Amino acid sequence: MKTAAICAIGDEILIGQIVDTNSSHISRALGSIGVRVKGISSIGDDRETIISHLDNLLKNNDIVIVTGGLGPTKDDITKEALATLSGAKGYYRSQEQTAVIESILSRRGIAMLDINRAQADVPDTARVIVNKLGTAPIMEFAFDAAKYGHRALLYSMPGVPYETLAALDDVTAAIKSHFEMDEILHRTICTFGMAESVLAKTIEAWESALPDYLHLAYLPNAIYGVRLRLSLYGAHEQGRKEAMEAAVNELYALLGNYIYGEGEDTLQTVIPRLLQAPPAAAYQETISAAESCTGGLVSNLITSVPGSSAYYKGSVTSYANEVKTNLLNVSEEILEKYGAVSRECAEAMARGVSILLDTDWSVATTGIAGPTGGSDAKPVGTCWTAAAHRNPFTGEVEVVSRLVKSASASREVNMQRFASNALNLLRLFMQQKLL
Amino acid sequence: MKTAAICAIGDEILIGQIVDTNSSHISRALGSIGVRVKGISSIGDDRETIISHLDNLLKNNDIVIVTGGLGPTKDDITKEALATLSGAKGYYRSQEQTAVIESILSRRGIAMLDINRAQADVPDTARVIVNKLGTAPIMEFAFDAAKYGHRALLYSMPGVPYETLAALDDVTAAIKSHFEMDEILHRTICTFGMAESVLAKTIEAWESALPDYLHLAYLPNAIYGVRLRLSLYGAHEQGRKEAMEAAVNELYALLGNYIYGEGEDTLQTVIPRLLQAPPAAAYQETISAAESCTGGLVSNLITSVPGSSAYYKGSVTSYANEVKTNLLNVSEEILEKYGAVSRECAEAMARGVSILLDTDWSVATTGIAGPTGGSDAKPVGTCWTAAAHRNPFTGEVEVVSRLVKSASASREVNMQRFASNALNLLRLFMQQKLL
Repeated sequence: MKTAAICAIGDEILIGQIVDTNSSHISRALGSIGVRVKGISSIGDDRETIISHLDNLLKNNDIVIVTGGLGPTKDDITKEALATLSGAKGYYRSQEQTAVIESILSRRGIAMLDINRAQADVPDTARVIVNKLGTAPIMEFAFDAAKYGHRALLYSMPGVPYETLAALDDVTAAIKSHFEMDEILHRTICTFGMAESVLAKTIEAWESALPDYLHLAYLPNAIYGVRLRLSLYGAHEQGRKEAMEAAVNELYALLGNYIYGEGEDTLQTVIPRLLQAPPAAAYQETISAAESCTGGLVSNLITSVPGSSAYYKGSVTSYANEVKTNLLNVSEEILEKYGAVSRECAEAMARGVSILLDTDWSVATTGIAGPTGGSDAKPVGTCWTAAAHRNPFTGEVEVVSRLVKSASASREVNMQRFASNALNLLRLFMQQKLL
Repeated sequence: MKTAAICAIGDEILIGQIVDTNSSHISRALGSIGVRVKGISSIGDDRETIISHLDNLLKNNDIVIVTGGLGPTKDDITKEALATLSGAKGYYRSQEQTAVIESILSRRGIAMLDINRAQADVPDTARVIVNKLGTAPIMEFAFDAAKYGHRALLYSMPGVPYETLAALDDVTAAIKSHFEMDEILHRTICTFGMAESVLAKTIEAWESALPDYLHLAYLPNAIYGVRLRLSLYGAHEQGRKEAMEAAVNELYALLGNYIYGEGEDTLQTVIPRLLQAPPAAAYQETISAAESCTGGLVSNLITSVPGSSAYYKGSVTSYANEVKTNLLNVSEEILEKYGAVSRECAEAMARGVSILLDTDWSVATTGIAGPTGGSDAKPVGTCWTAAAHRNPFTGEVEVVSRLVKSASASREVNMQRFASNALNLLRLFMQQKLL
C-alpha cells in the first residue's frame, strides 16, 4: 500500500489564526484511492524549514501533498523552496494558468499586475495541473528512485480550501497514472437523527459480522448527520462486490428511514427529489421557510443547492416577535401563553409562511441558540421545529412538529443542529405523505 | 525565544474523519505567552511512531504539547508511550483526578469500572495537572539538559476540544513557571473591499520599510476580507512598541475606510457598534435584510453574533420574484424594465424591507450565484447590493447601492462574497451617516 504525508505551509496556521481543514479533505481523497496517510504536519513560511521538512517526508513516503504558501505576496515562499528542493534551473510560465488568472481578474474587474502574472510561473522541474478556480497553479514534482531510493511524487496545492477541494480529483488521477493502486470501492450511507453512540450500538452485530475486506468508518457532522462509509478492499476478487451489496441492504433494513441518502447527499439535496414536479405531476411543488433561532441558516442551506430557485420561493426570518405576528400571523395569544419557543409557535410559523409565500411545503424553527439566555424549563439548546403541507385542492394546512435538544456551548453548533433537524423533519413528513 | 511543537495523536485525524482544531487553540495560547510554534503534526495510534516522533520533537523544541490518545480503550496508547519515552519505573494514581472521574460518572449515572479508575494512573515521571472537565489527567514531563541538550517540557492533553481549551491556562502557567519568556505582541488589522494583490501593492513601500522585528502576514478570507497581522518580537526592547504603534497608524492613513476593525472583528460584529442606542441615543436602532441570491446568508451572518436580537428584527428571502413584489413592494415595472438583478431592484428591496419590518437600517442583495445561469451582460458572479437608512423623523428612506463582481466557480464562495460585500456596504453607509 502506498503511503503519503500531507503538509500545510503557513505561519497563519502555526499561530492559530486559521485551522487547517484542507488536510482532512486530502486524507479522505487519498484514502478513497487506497493510499494510507502516515502523517499530517504544518510548518511556517520559512525557506530552510520547508526544504528540509519536505525532503524528509519524501524520504519516508511515496506521495507528499503540500498546501499553501502560494499567494502573490512576499511572505509566500513555497514555490521557491520547491524549485530548490527539486533542483530547478529556472522557471517557465504556464499559458493555461495565465488564461485562468486573466479570466478571474477581468471578471472581478481588477487590472492584471506583474505579481498576478508571476503566479503562473513554475519551476522547470514541475508539471502544471491547472487550478481552474484560483490563480496559483497546482504543481507536480516526480522524483525518480535515484534521489530517495523509491519513486516519490510531490504535489503543491493552494491553501484556499475550495480551490484545493476542486482540484483533488485531478491530483488523485495524476497519482493513479504514476502508481498501480489497489482497487478500493466505497459506499457511503447518509443517516440523520440517531446519535453516533446509539447508531454504533444499533449496528454492533452487523458491524462485527463484516468480512475483513469490508471496513466501516463513522463520519459525524452537525449539518449532515452521521455518514457510514463502507470500503471494499480488493474489489476485483470474486464475490466481494456482492458481499458489499448484501451488507448495505442489511444496513437499510436495520436503520429504516434514519437513512436519507447516499454518497454526497445532504438533506437539502434530497428534499427537492421528494417534490412533485412536471412532467410526472400537474405542477411544480414549492417550499418556503420561517426561521427564528436559526436566523437564515435553513434558507441558506436550501439555496446552497444549484437550481433551488425552481422550487424554493423564499423565507421570513422572524427574529423579532412583532415579525412573527405581523407577517407570519402567529397570534399574540400563542406568544403570551406558550412563548416564542414553543410547539404552538413553531407550528403557527410553518403554517403562516406557507400561506404568506403561497407554497406547498414549509419548515420552521424557534429556539434558543445561546451561548447565554434560556431558562430552566427552556435551556440554551432547546428548539421547536415544524413542517407544514398545504393541500393544493382544499387549501388546508397540515403541520407536524418536533422538539430538538442540542445544548452545545457553541451558538454556531446549536444553530446548525436546529437547522438540519428542521430539514430532516420536513424530509420525513414528505416521505410519509408520499406513502 | 522558546519554541514549541504541537502533536495530535489519533488515526481518526489521519483518515480525515475529524479535523484537528485543538492545535489552533494551543498555538494561540502559546503565542500569547511568547512561545513560537515551529510545527504542528498529526500521527496515528502507533506506539513506535509516537515514541520516535515525540523524541525528535523534544530534541528540536523547548516545549512539546501532545493531544489525544488518552481514552480508556485499547487503541489509545499515548500514556504507555510517554512512560517509555520518559523512562518511568511504574505508575501512581492521582487522587485529585480520581475524584473528578467519580463526580463525572456519578452525574451521568454510570457505575465506576476498573478502566475508568485506570485513567487516573500516570507514569511516575509525570506531574499531574487536573483535567476538571474530563476523565483523562493532563500530564507534565520535564526533561533536564542531560537528555536533550536543553531543558524540555512535554504536556499531554486530552483530545476532547473543550477539555483541552479549559486546561490551556493551567498549562501556560506551568510553562511560565519553568521558563523565563520573551514577549511577543500581535496587532491584527481587518480590511475589506481591496483584493489581496492590490492591497499588497498599496502598502508595498510601507511593508519594505518595516524594521526587522515587525513581521507582517496576510490572512485573506471570503467572509471577513483580508486581515493584516503585524507581530512584534522582543516587545520589551526600548522603542519597539512605539514603532509598532507608528506603523499601525501609517497603515490606517494608507488604507482609510478599507479598514473596518481589528483583532477578531468581523463586519457583523462591527455593524452593531455603529448603531445608535441607549443611553447615548433616544432609542435602539434596528436592522433588517432582504436577500435574493444570498438566500439567507446575510441574515445568518448577522444572527451569528450573540445578542443580535437586540437590534436585528429579521429578513425576507425573496427568492421568487412574486415575493419581491408582494412583500417587498418591488414594482412589476422594475422587474420588467431592469430585471431582478439590477441596481433598481436591489434599492427597492432594501427600501421595501426597511418599511415592511419597520427598521432604521437595511441591506439587500440580488444577483447570480451560479454555477450556471446568467447572461453576457449579467454573468454568474454579478450581484447588486444595496443599503437603506430610514430617517426616524420624516420616515424618508435613503438608499445606496454597489455592484459586486465575484465570478468564482463556486456557488458557495459567490454567496459569501455577495453577503460580505452587502454587509460592507451597510457598514460604509453607516460610517458616512455618522460623520
